[in-house]
Amino acid sequence: MNDYSLLSRDVSAAAARIERWIHRTPVVTSNYFDRISRSHCYFKCENLQKVGAFKFRGACNAVFSIPDSEIQNGVIAHSSGNHAQALALAAQFRGVRAFIVMPDNAPKVKQAAARDYGATITFCASNLAARETTQAEIIENTGAIEIHPYDNLHIICGQGTSARELLAERPDLDCLIAPVGGGGLLAGTALAAFAHSKHIKVFGAEPINADDAARSLAAGKIIPSVNPNTIADGLLTSLGHYNFSIIQDLVEGILTVGEEAITEVMKMFWQRTKLIIEPSAATAVAALLNYPDHFANKKVGVIISGGNVDLEQLPWQ
Amino acid sequence: MNDYSLLSRDVSAAAARIERWIHRTPVVTSNYFDRISRSHCYFKCENLQKVGAFKFRGACNAVFSIPDSEIQNGVIAHSSGNHAQALALAAQFRGVRAFIVMPDNAPKVKQAAARDYGATITFCASNLAARETTQAEIIENTGAIEIHPYDNLHIICGQGTSARELLAERPDLDCLIAPVGGGGLLAGTALAAFAHSKHIKVFGAEPINADDAARSLAAGKIIPSVNPNTIADGLLTSLGHYNFSIIQDLVEGILTVGEEAITEVMKMFWQRTKLIIEPSAATAVAALLNYPDHFANKKVGVIISGGNVDLEQLPWQ
Repeated sequence: MNDYSLLSRDVSAAAARIERWIHRTPVVTSNYFDRISRSHCYFKCENLQKVGAFKFRGACNAVFSIPDSEIQNGVIAHSSGNHAQALALAAQFRGVRAFIVMPDNAPKVKQAAARDYGATITFCASNLAARETTQAEIIENTGAIEIHPYDNLHIICGQGTSARELLAERPDLDCLIAPVGGGGLLAGTALAAFAHSKHIKVFGAEPINADDAARSLAAGKIIPSVNPNTIADGLLTSLGHYNFSIIQDLVEGILTVGEEAITEVMKMFWQRTKLIIEPSAATAVAALLNYPDHFANKKVGVIISGGNVDLEQLPWQ
Repeated sequence: MNDYSLLSRDVSAAAARIERWIHRTPVVTSNYFDRISRSHCYFKCENLQKVGAFKFRGACNAVFSIPDSEIQNGVIAHSSGNHAQALALAAQFRGVRAFIVMPDNAPKVKQAAARDYGATITFCASNLAARETTQAEIIENTGAIEIHPYDNLHIICGQGTSARELLAERPDLDCLIAPVGGGGLLAGTALAAFAHSKHIKVFGAEPINADDAARSLAAGKIIPSVNPNTIADGLLTSLGHYNFSIIQDLVEGILTVGEEAITEVMKMFWQRTKLIIEPSAATAVAALLNYPDHFANKKVGVIISGGNVDLEQLPWQ
């Protein structure tokens, strides 16, 4: 196991760096969820973060970590999701350009959102090779710096600031749950917990239909998902390399949940808390409810990763 | 005009009486809504109140205002809406029975909610005469005390505690907007504003399709709605007598908005704030956006009345 005492301090550095740009999101409790989970749950609401997701923390930390002399040509990523908007807004705050490569079938609403935040969008065919080629061309032409959405230590430490705030408010938590896709949020959460206390157990939550993290941990090496099919569209990506390494060392386990549970829990959360959460966030709440052996009678922090959903197409309809 | 210096103090008394039973709800701001309304808006989130609506404030104040010697036989109301749940929960906290008369076609989810809070439910035919007859019989048999959902000064002063909290947090507001159905929330809001400063302008927001408050104020007498048809199902009722009198004296005006605006603003609010609000609450936000002559460059408090919606049947679908 690596020595994480230095890296976990980078979460504190990230918190100081991004403090003035982000929302300090609220922690919400619910008698109803306490009752049905038989635990004490604390929901850290990144759905109320800027751009509607925790991704803004990591993007901010990455963008504000780059020295002035190196960032003048802007930043770039290929993404059609929350990372695109997050990077665009962070770059706007930094006063530099953001180049976003998007597949030409990306939803109009996501194109508009990135453009609203001032990004320069380039469209390409909807496959990884086309995205990477297009991105390489723009980097060649502009000198923009790539900010990977999760396999990047600045991103990871930025995402960890959510758990860090939660632990500052609730220092006595027994467990933390975060959803896992590429692993930026889960790895950052584990680092924040490590810095706080060696006694907190950190769990990842993952759809059964995109269970590459569970399989990778079992195999001891990264096993990417092949054509995963889940409504948790934020969790389709496979683990990054930095992410896998940190998760392997610091995370207690990966808890998988089915599609029906994700949908049901998402709707229940909307009804009971009046807060809109996306399927990826519901995956973490579903893990809380489906694994009482881990969580009953414990104080459990759950990172509500985001709230960006298409209100025209809700999964229960 | 009546002298409101005494009655407006009853809002303070209500606040002290119900403090330990209610949530002190958060005040939310939004750069997006500031920009499109060209004002500074402060949303007081009664959708995050217990039972998901401001109604719990009034019900609590009414139930805890009755002396021990008189409340032993419980309380009663006929309602299929938020007042039923609010009264049931307030009675549960007080340790007395709640009798609720509901039309036999009331949605199952509302029946279940009132029952969850320990209410004794009696069903009757779905018309006002049947409701009142059934209620009178139960009062005759049990000695329960009727708590009217809005035409009751304890209810009105209880509802006013939301605006009172908002003004404590934001003492420099220029205007307040509250939706108006029976007028409990609007009258209470006007009393709270009156107690705080004579310079705050209070507006009611009402669907064009249920505009009895606007017509009643214009006529100088109560003109009930006849078969109103609006998605703002909390605003179907016509003004109560106490309510009309207070609103006539203390409210600046009633702003009406169309069904399309209510739906559009409701969806926009969900998307931008990640908070679920019901159509009645969206009516108040729509008034903010549709009447810039009143609100541009002003500090405006908006009472977000509640967040109880049927997630299977959203108005934009």
